[in-house]
Amino acid sequence: MDLLSRPANANCPIAHTLQLVGQKWSLLILREAFFGRTKFAEFQQIGVPTDTLTSRLDALVTAGIFERRTYRSEGRRAHDEYILTAAGRDLLTVLAALSQWGNKHLDFPDVQYEATTTGTPVHLAFVDDTGHEVPPADITVIP
Amino acid sequence: MDLLSRPANANCPIAHTLQLVGQKWSLLILREAFFGRTKFAEFQQIGVPTDTLTSRLDALVTAGIFERRTYRSEGRRAHDEYILTAAGRDLLTVLAALSQWGNKHLDFPDVQYEATTTGTPVHLAFVDDTGHEVPPADITVIP
Repeated sequence: MDLLSRPANANCPIAHTLQLVGQKWSLLILREAFFGRTKFAEFQQIGVPTDTLTSRLDALVTAGIFERRTYRSEGRRAHDEYILTAAGRDLLTVLAALSQWGNKHLDFPDVQYEATTTGTPVHLAFVDDTGHEVPPADITVIP
Repeated sequence: MDLLSRPANANCPIAHTLQLVGQKWSLLILREAFFGRTKFAEFQQIGVPTDTLTSRLDALVTAGIFERRTYRSEGRRAHDEYILTAAGRDLLTVLAALSQWGNKHLDFPDVQYEATTTGTPVHLAFVDDTGHEVPPADITVIP
């Protein structure tokens, strides 16, 4: 992706993260992983062409977002499965930001998020160190 | 983008939001807008080809993310400028999620965010209704 060679983007964490997960289908493959899917055939269900899926999974493994493991069901040959790494699980904020925006502005039903340990519903927000929420309209970005 | 025709994606707010902002350069154009840039020539500085920039700005206006306004500097001809709408400003969570991930996992310097009215530093996080933060590793996604 030539955009990283531009001075405005060479040190930009947004541009570098997009280089890893911004290609078409990558974030939808990750969405499936957060729903617990791990197998090539499961990812294919979303409609991604086979060659593209192979390429995206390879890139996400290389980027350290998926770990590739081999599994073998009884009596069948070995297959790969794709498990989110800790870095991969941190991408949940990106998916949640996209889905919350789509829920609010496109009126699609939002995916729900809850704390696994307590079952408490959670949402994504800008917060200060005391947990006070600040709406996006009140945020200044400092380069 | 054919992915929206697939049953798995037709009602997915992530897929629909990506259709509006997921094309190459779109999120970097939006990044510049959050830095206060509004003019075609300013967006060009990031290295996006002119034809692509025209196409991306048109699409973002159509999507209701930018509002196009005409400005006229003294003694010069009129030009368009591109102002984030309220829906556009809400995309700051998407950009912040991408930049926080790049900061943490790719070791790029993070952009800083603060509350405009109070000057307090803020960050993006999953929080419950009491402002308690929950790490991404402890989140369950419910389709």
